[in-house]
Amino acid sequence: MKVAMKTQTSLSLTDKVKNILSAYESDSPKVKENLGRILMHGRLGGTGQMIILPVDQGFEHGPARSFAGNPVCYDPHYFYQLALDAGLNAYAAPLGALQAGVETFGDKIPLILKMNHGNSLLSSKTNPDQAVTCSVQDAVDLGCAAVGFTLYNGSESYNAQLEELRDIIAEAKSHGLPTVVWCYPRGGVLPKEAETAIDVVAYAAHMACQAGAHMIKVKLPSDTVWLEAAKKSYENIPVKTLAERVRHVTQACFNGRRLVVFSGGEAKEEAAILSEIIAIRQGGGNGSIMGRNAFQRKKEDALKLFDDMIAILKG
Amino acid sequence: MKVAMKTQTSLSLTDKVKNILSAYESDSPKVKENLGRILMHGRLGGTGQMIILPVDQGFEHGPARSFAGNPVCYDPHYFYQLALDAGLNAYAAPLGALQAGVETFGDKIPLILKMNHGNSLLSSKTNPDQAVTCSVQDAVDLGCAAVGFTLYNGSESYNAQLEELRDIIAEAKSHGLPTVVWCYPRGGVLPKEAETAIDVVAYAAHMACQAGAHMIKVKLPSDTVWLEAAKKSYENIPVKTLAERVRHVTQACFNGRRLVVFSGGEAKEEAAILSEIIAIRQGGGNGSIMGRNAFQRKKEDALKLFDDMIAILKG
Amino acid sequence: MKVAMKTQTSLSLTDKVKNILSAYESDSPKVKENLGRILMHGRLGGTGQMIILPVDQGFEHGPARSFAGNPVCYDPHYFYQLALDAGLNAYAAPLGALQAGVETFGDKIPLILKMNHGNSLLSSKTNPDQAVTCSVQDAVDLGCAAVGFTLYNGSESYNAQLEELRDIIAEAKSHGLPTVVWCYPRGGVLPKEAETAIDVVAYAAHMACQAGAHMIKVKLPSDTVWLEAAKKSYENIPVKTLAERVRHVTQACFNGRRLVVFSGGEAKEEAAILSEIIAIRQGGGNGSIMGRNAFQRKKEDALKLFDDMIAILKG
Amino acid sequence: MKVAMKTQTSLSLTDKVKNILSAYESDSPKVKENLGRILMHGRLGGTGQMIILPVDQGFEHGPARSFAGNPVCYDPHYFYQLALDAGLNAYAAPLGALQAGVETFGDKIPLILKMNHGNSLLSSKTNPDQAVTCSVQDAVDLGCAAVGFTLYNGSESYNAQLEELRDIIAEAKSHGLPTVVWCYPRGGVLPKEAETAIDVVAYAAHMACQAGAHMIKVKLPSDTVWLEAAKKSYENIPVKTLAERVRHVTQACFNGRRLVVFSGGEAKEEAAILSEIIAIRQGGGNGSIMGRNAFQRKKEDALKLFDDMIAILKG
Amino acid sequence: MKVAMKTQTSLSLTDKVKNILSAYESDSPKVKENLGRILMHGRLGGTGQMIILPVDQGFEHGPARSFAGNPVCYDPHYFYQLALDAGLNAYAAPLGALQAGVETFGDKIPLILKMNHGNSLLSSKTNPDQAVTCSVQDAVDLGCAAVGFTLYNGSESYNAQLEELRDIIAEAKSHGLPTVVWCYPRGGVLPKEAETAIDVVAYAAHMACQAGAHMIKVKLPSDTVWLEAAKKSYENIPVKTLAERVRHVTQACFNGRRLVVFSGGEAKEEAAILSEIIAIRQGGGNGSIMGRNAFQRKKEDALKLFDDMIAILKG
Repeated sequence: MKVAMKTQTSLSLTDKVKNILSAYESDSPKVKENLGRILMHGRLGGTGQMIILPVDQGFEHGPARSFAGNPVCYDPHYFYQLALDAGLNAYAAPLGALQAGVETFGDKIPLILKMNHGNSLLSSKTNPDQAVTCSVQDAVDLGCAAVGFTLYNGSESYNAQLEELRDIIAEAKSHGLPTVVWCYPRGGVLPKEAETAIDVVAYAAHMACQAGAHMIKVKLPSDTVWLEAAKKSYENIPVKTLAERVRHVTQACFNGRRLVVFSGGEAKEEAAILSEIIAIRQGGGNGSIMGRNAFQRKKEDALKLFDDMIAILKG
Repeated sequence: MKVAMKTQTSLSLTDKVKNILSAYESDSPKVKENLGRILMHGRLGGTGQMIILPVDQGFEHGPARSFAGNPVCYDPHYFYQLALDAGLNAYAAPLGALQAGVETFGDKIPLILKMNHGNSLLSSKTNPDQAVTCSVQDAVDLGCAAVGFTLYNGSESYNAQLEELRDIIAEAKSHGLPTVVWCYPRGGVLPKEAETAIDVVAYAAHMACQAGAHMIKVKLPSDTVWLEAAKKSYENIPVKTLAERVRHVTQACFNGRRLVVFSGGEAKEEAAILSEIIAIRQGGGNGSIMGRNAFQRKKEDALKLFDDMIAILKG
Repeated sequence: MKVAMKTQTSLSLTDKVKNILSAYESDSPKVKENLGRILMHGRLGGTGQMIILPVDQGFEHGPARSFAGNPVCYDPHYFYQLALDAGLNAYAAPLGALQAGVETFGDKIPLILKMNHGNSLLSSKTNPDQAVTCSVQDAVDLGCAAVGFTLYNGSESYNAQLEELRDIIAEAKSHGLPTVVWCYPRGGVLPKEAETAIDVVAYAAHMACQAGAHMIKVKLPSDTVWLEAAKKSYENIPVKTLAERVRHVTQACFNGRRLVVFSGGEAKEEAAILSEIIAIRQGGGNGSIMGRNAFQRKKEDALKLFDDMIAILKG
Repeated sequence: MKVAMKTQTSLSLTDKVKNILSAYESDSPKVKENLGRILMHGRLGGTGQMIILPVDQGFEHGPARSFAGNPVCYDPHYFYQLALDAGLNAYAAPLGALQAGVETFGDKIPLILKMNHGNSLLSSKTNPDQAVTCSVQDAVDLGCAAVGFTLYNGSESYNAQLEELRDIIAEAKSHGLPTVVWCYPRGGVLPKEAETAIDVVAYAAHMACQAGAHMIKVKLPSDTVWLEAAKKSYENIPVKTLAERVRHVTQACFNGRRLVVFSGGEAKEEAAILSEIIAIRQGGGNGSIMGRNAFQRKKEDALKLFDDMIAILKG
Repeated sequence: MKVAMKTQTSLSLTDKVKNILSAYESDSPKVKENLGRILMHGRLGGTGQMIILPVDQGFEHGPARSFAGNPVCYDPHYFYQLALDAGLNAYAAPLGALQAGVETFGDKIPLILKMNHGNSLLSSKTNPDQAVTCSVQDAVDLGCAAVGFTLYNGSESYNAQLEELRDIIAEAKSHGLPTVVWCYPRGGVLPKEAETAIDVVAYAAHMACQAGAHMIKVKLPSDTVWLEAAKKSYENIPVKTLAERVRHVTQACFNGRRLVVFSGGEAKEEAAILSEIIAIRQGGGNGSIMGRNAFQRKKEDALKLFDDMIAILKG
């Protein structure tokens, strides 16, 4: 059965959240309300910091590679329950995974419908692209708080992807839904090292803001400056430490007027993750979006890790 | 004349079927009712097991190659009658074949309109694709219980095919129709051996679930693991026996929350077929979808084979 | 002025025609009525046999090559009058030619609007394609009894052509119009000899039926079997004589449940034509669709030829 | 301000014009009325002969190349005034040029909105194509009597161009507007000499008629026969003199049932132009469409030339 | 919140502005009113001269390259405030930048929504193209006075770009919004030197006028004549001085019937800028559109420069 009930979120916004939302000068009250649902939910609710659980690895890398190490993950209910038990702000996933648990969990945590997906059977070095596997109407039917979309900034079909994004943002706004943009600078002339180069990541995040994104997701950047034409400009921009680079990215996102969350990428040690979270907090980012490092751990370990992250982000 | 009457199916669902349908958490009562029509029909009705007769070989391989050995097959009425006499759950075919018998048989057995088709005059190793030769409205007009769609997972146009599927699923749902996805991992970088490799088949099935499919059709997989990046994950997944591989595929389909039926491919001995059916049953699959091995036998032999398959699947 | 009046056709159908129409199990009374208009019209009216005059050579080969030998053909009224005087079942032509005589002749003979056209300025060996030069609405406005569409089965754009056909059939049906499909297996890997090979022609005709065509037009096939994979199947199919090949094609068209008419191709002697007509009759085809061999003869010779053909088809 | 007033044209048609319009058997009274507006306007009004001023050279060749020799041409009002002062039947131009004078001149002379345009910054030998730079609605808003469209018959995108034309004709007709087709056989395998070859020009004109064009514009053809397959047919067609070639083209246009106007191409001497006009008159064409040879002359010379042309066409 | 309030502009038009608007003969009062809003606003209001602040460098070159030298620019409010404080006619920017300040500044200065954008991660020498990152509806929702669109005249996709522009102009007009076209002759066969060649720039501007643009933006051209075919025509056109070239461009824009503003390109000395402004004034252009030379200066320097420019343009 379709579920369009809102999650039970306290709607008395904190000043911090009110302030964040006030920067969305052109958005309708309904879009702001949905952004507010995410910002006010869970143990970080009201702080302006977020942790979001994204799970699309089954689609992107295949089920066995993603879930065999922790087979409870084959069941889509697991991710809902994990995000819920950890007290996170939102759970983001493809259509099928959300559908499979929405009746049971849909009113318990804000959902983000990830709308496009790549996969590991296809691969293009210069023209990476994703299939848009669902519609904004699906997000509405599932009672989501937002939609998500991946841009491969630099891909040969980047212009077409920007135009897909434009239509999705417009349709989502007409239903009161904000849009989260996953920025992956990849394809075209970009080598592997450019994908996390600080200049490229900041540029990609800025373009998503210009395209009307409400929240930006980028990988934590390295201190490489890749674009030849940008090197001179970076001589006077402090980007040595991770916290400085986080700060530069938020600066590129309309000087902090747009929400930015950071992902860490591949599985790593808990200590490494927590030091990244500290940098996000110090640099003024809006938190973390973390998948594999959570669901590929045993549930108790994942909950412990989230506890520690939340403690840091609460500051 | 258009026929939109429902097949005469007992609608008092068994607990087994109720349980299966309850996993479709986001679907409307109408979609579940149509899934229920298929699950409750025929001699396996109510068991959660199915046998479906699919006949699209005339389109895909040509009429003579498909039917010359049993010329009664040139008449589209034959397949309807065969599925009916054998007590199967549903009959799946292209538009023209369904049209040619719908007035005579449309209210006697659930129909699945197969919406896209390849053919043997065209062939592309890297970019296999199918023409969508009819519309969801055709399925509605024919009184079908579901629509069917083939994905060539891995084809260079796989992303475009996923987007076609997305639109078909959405339109079908708006008419209360579930969608069955035929997964053929083929094209792009995939060699012949990858098409039935257990990792590739499980991955293809998982992606169909993520795209919102209600039922998945895959070939029975081999124990080959083809994707280099997946090999490590499969070290601890039991896939030696066919039953184990069936079980792994159902696991990849949201841990059994989505229906999966298996096909055996080319013509083979009855004993071989029955041992496959046993494996499907043992592995927790939802039954069989079998074309050539049925209609290319004499009718009495086909009915005998179906009898034996049904006996096994009833368990 | 737009002409939407129906041709004056006796609507008391013969049993033969009733029987033919009853095989169109999914079609609306309006579609059957229009098929009936063609089957009941002219001197073959009611016999289940047809002769249709198709004239699109001006578009496909150019006006001088087509008409210079019989310059009355430059005037589009000539073809209407010829079909009328010969007592044929229908006249098929491109938009412009029909428009130029519809007020004068539109209520006197069933019209088939041929909707797509190739031309001799373009030529592609592997990707032959036609422009769709008019719409179903044009057919409705002209009061046509059917629309016509060419498929180049085997062309690199065959899938796209099938999808164009799908949309045309659907729109035509919504206006009560049946669709006639001209099958030209051509393009892709097909060499010249394959275009009339019996296996390829039967296959092409079968695919048109599966796509929902109401009437199929093919060239009279040769006894070549071209597809390697089909050769074994043809060892036991009698295709030595032309009549046998006609019978095999009707078999491939849902065992006679769909109408099939045959064309002979290039200009030839009267005796050769008549022996083809005899074969069509013997093989159980539904008649002839003949252009150049009619209009490139002097009118009196053409009328004489049609007389002889009609005599044979009446049996 | 939008101007949708009709030009002041006497609507009591001459028998000549009534006769011409009666050949448009499928067209609505509104379409015929607009064709009539053009045929009845100016000093040739009612004769069945026309002179149309087309000015799109600014778009196609650039403003300086087109207008520097007669700088009054930079002002779009000049062309309106010239056509008006010369007593021509109509003025044809791109959107911008018509917009710039429609309030001042829109009710004084029938307008033809030329809808697609090439330019001299792009050039493709095998795939010439034009951008459609305005819409039928623009023609309606400007109060035009017709729309114009260029076909590059033979271009690799000729099929796509025919389909664009189909949609424009259909939409124009729905607003009561006829369509004039500019035929430029060019691109694909066609060499320069083929562009004016009599067989190619007649073929191009014929295809435009088949596509539903109301008026055809072609260049005056040479006596070259270019298509190998057409050479035999032309052995018995008289095409030695220009008048014979004009006659053959009108024959190819449904034996005179469609209006055909001829252009002369590049700038030339007055005597040469007038001898061409004589041939058009003798061959039964419907007049002249002449741009550069008019506006690149001083106004008084242009008016004198038009006077002489009108005298000839009046006969 | 959406902001659709108009900027507070005196609507009693000067004779100069009335005269300019009267040349837009086909436009609705609403479109003229919006053109009038821009022409009447700021310190040049009513003079027929304009200075517009365009800022899309964050999208096109990246945030650090554009803003690091003057970090206040990371905040989108800065540009609004700068245009306001300098008393300019309008501020033009991408969607995101306008959204971020529209509630605060939307009623204080006319806005132009720049609708398409290139970026520095992609680059094509022969086929430059831009993504259309927002919609006309966005411009309406933001209360803009106009929309802006870039054409790469000469690009291999120039025809497609013209058709995008056509649809945008039509939709914008239906909402009463005029369209400003940024002309960048680039791509295809054009070398770097052609991009500012006087013949190419005048040609590009002319085509934009023909396509229905209301205002044209070009770079100040050089005295190079690049098109071989145009060289003869330029022998008698005075283009030695910058003022003469400005005059020629306005001539190419329907002899002054369309507004033309000029940009200077890369950062340069104040003296160089002012001498360009003098040439624009002398040549009869309608003013300046200047981004980097303004916002990359310290605010006080930028305001001083604008003061000097306004003094010159006021004349």
